[in-house]
Amino acid sequence: MPHPSTAYLRINSDRLCDDFEQVSAIGLTADRGICRTALSLEDLEARAWFANRIEEAGFLVHDDDAGNLSGVLRAANPQARTLLIGSHLDTVPNAGRYDGALGIVTALECMRTIHEAGIRLAHHLEVIDFTDDEGTWMPMFGSMSLSGRLDPAFMKSADGQVGLFRAALAQAGIRPEDVLRARRDPATVLGYIELHIEQGWRLERAQIDVGVVTGIVARMSYSATFHGQASHAGTASMRERRDALQGAARFIVRAHDLVREHYPEGTLNCGVLDMPSSTLTTVPDQARVLMEWRHSSPALLYEMERALLALAQECAAAANVTVEMRQLAHIPAAQMSPTIIDAIERACKVVGVTHTRMASYASHNSQVMSAFTPSGMLFIPSLNGLSHNPDEFSRWDDVVKGANVLLHAVLALAADG
Amino acid sequence: MPHPSTAYLRINSDRLCDDFEQVSAIGLTADRGICRTALSLEDLEARAWFANRIEEAGFLVHDDDAGNLSGVLRAANPQARTLLIGSHLDTVPNAGRYDGALGIVTALECMRTIHEAGIRLAHHLEVIDFTDDEGTWMPMFGSMSLSGRLDPAFMKSADGQVGLFRAALAQAGIRPEDVLRARRDPATVLGYIELHIEQGWRLERAQIDVGVVTGIVARMSYSATFHGQASHAGTASMRERRDALQGAARFIVRAHDLVREHYPEGTLNCGVLDMPSSTLTTVPDQARVLMEWRHSSPALLYEMERALLALAQECAAAANVTVEMRQLAHIPAAQMSPTIIDAIERACKVVGVTHTRMASYASHNSQVMSAFTPSGMLFIPSLNGLSHNPDEFSRWDDVVKGANVLLHAVLALAADG
Repeated sequence: MPHPSTAYLRINSDRLCDDFEQVSAIGLTADRGICRTALSLEDLEARAWFANRIEEAGFLVHDDDAGNLSGVLRAANPQARTLLIGSHLDTVPNAGRYDGALGIVTALECMRTIHEAGIRLAHHLEVIDFTDDEGTWMPMFGSMSLSGRLDPAFMKSADGQVGLFRAALAQAGIRPEDVLRARRDPATVLGYIELHIEQGWRLERAQIDVGVVTGIVARMSYSATFHGQASHAGTASMRERRDALQGAARFIVRAHDLVREHYPEGTLNCGVLDMPSSTLTTVPDQARVLMEWRHSSPALLYEMERALLALAQECAAAANVTVEMRQLAHIPAAQMSPTIIDAIERACKVVGVTHTRMASYASHNSQVMSAFTPSGMLFIPSLNGLSHNPDEFSRWDDVVKGANVLLHAVLALAADG
Repeated sequence: MPHPSTAYLRINSDRLCDDFEQVSAIGLTADRGICRTALSLEDLEARAWFANRIEEAGFLVHDDDAGNLSGVLRAANPQARTLLIGSHLDTVPNAGRYDGALGIVTALECMRTIHEAGIRLAHHLEVIDFTDDEGTWMPMFGSMSLSGRLDPAFMKSADGQVGLFRAALAQAGIRPEDVLRARRDPATVLGYIELHIEQGWRLERAQIDVGVVTGIVARMSYSATFHGQASHAGTASMRERRDALQGAARFIVRAHDLVREHYPEGTLNCGVLDMPSSTLTTVPDQARVLMEWRHSSPALLYEMERALLALAQECAAAANVTVEMRQLAHIPAAQMSPTIIDAIERACKVVGVTHTRMASYASHNSQVMSAFTPSGMLFIPSLNGLSHNPDEFSRWDDVVKGANVLLHAVLALAADG
């Protein structure tokens, strides 16, 4: 428990708001969205801004070999462990302002509040911006590197996309050959905690201030490449043509129906469809669908995989085309640490806000970190559940409540040796 | 009728084959396809090759302000009219070797054969390569310009795509501001004739040597842009998300079913689907489908339009998204000239090949030219009906038969003053 005199400590809402407005101006697009895809000039600009804010607040700037950027408040004991408080400054293209950035600015504000109050903690605090959370190049690249889960073969891959990734890292001043050095010894880390917007509407609809995350659902992603035969749009028989897009479209429709009907707790997204060298007057010979699905039950996640693979074959056959399925990623479900769950719930009581336990259907760095160190997350309400959208919004009052809960959870976790 | 002594005249198959092999090497891709999209470096290389062949054969090279490139054999009478024999050297991406190029090399070979035989025709002959038949920038741009059907406002449009087109023209040495000057006086033109591969399998299946085209079916093209709402792939409810790709995919499947069931004489192609800034983890907020349909009956072409517009709204509503429909083009049906149909049929008898009358489901420059001057086309068989595909193929024997029919049709049409 924190020293009783800290119970009334609160973050500085105006200073936090000022930071949030500043970071929200970086990568702003013409249609009021944010584009700070990982390692883009805008992402690098946000990192430079973050480094300046860390220095202005009197903390140490630290960056590791995977580009993770931190501000550190050291405890008196050099042998102390580090409590990581993190999130990410990178975004998907045309994103909103809250996803990721809010976790960074609230963490920095908590650390400033603790520092200003002269509180001496038993553990080091470290606010960390993880590289490429959103997967512009590789989802969770920063936390994968820090936790030692990065496949050493991956960074040397001859795949062209990985080559581009290496080039992007090098341009950002990160040496691809040194990335594996970002791995930390888990014995030096106390835990990981992250504040994030819910990105759903459960908190808003239930009118609850804070969601205490108990675990993150498992996720699998695949590419489905349908192969037909190019032919002339006007002259090829409608009954005999082999149209790859017909196969893909049938699959997209029926896959959604399948998940809605048979896996009501699961989600599916066919997020990308591309067709190389397609033209209006040519029957499509190739259509590639990128999809991902999530489920809180690992068994049902695998069952969805089997059902979707079979459905893809069925849809391809119905369109007289073939399909090639390739697994892109499988991120297992993650359990949050009971200690951190408890710290967040106690912090809610200290701050005087309502809370509920919930599973997260979005992936977060805590999913990767939980296999490495005790991890936890708290959600604040999102309006209308919108995220990955310029209209993403959270009420400022909810942001401040969440930041204060994060403050008191951090105090509770880092207070005792 | 040609002079009786010309009835046994035949083209030089070896020389034609040599030309065809040479042009087929221009724009050859790694997977044995051809890529000579209009105004690309490869298209310009093919034009330069064609100009050299024209000069080597002793004809005049002529190019007009729309980039149409011709070889001319002038009649003695300077007031004579011109019989145009044409096709196109440009291709779709990843095309086959025959579509377009075969019409150019057979036309040139016919003109060489007539010239070598010392035959004096009453009319000028002109072998013409029309700019951008395939619509990389604007379908039938060359014949639209020559026949005066180009909209003067189009070339000045502020639309970005038209700006790129102007830049491509300028790079190819064609001044966009001069394009309208390519218009010819119809009184100077005798007619237009084109040899082309069928791009279907009717001739091959019926084992007939030559198809005599009676008309070209009408064609309409549209873009259908489905608008949903971007949201997070994992957290947005499967039942409440507004997924633009779901709307598009439903439409693609049902539109094909609709045409197959209710318009057995019609064809439909959804050839392109694109999704700006799409990602795996974002529910798609936009999906644009480019489609075209064809029918020999103008009334049924319009009926298909009404049915497809209604279906798009229905599919959008079913996916809880909206759709915006925009007509891209409407190319009316075209009738071929009875005089040219007759000349081709007589030529088939002279050469001793079988023939049948047929409608064309593919668009051709003759569709544009038929509103300007008496026009006609002959088809030779395509193997398996494949076209717009590297495996496009016609037997050489069928090519030679077709070239000789073209020769005798040209002789018949241009012989008499």
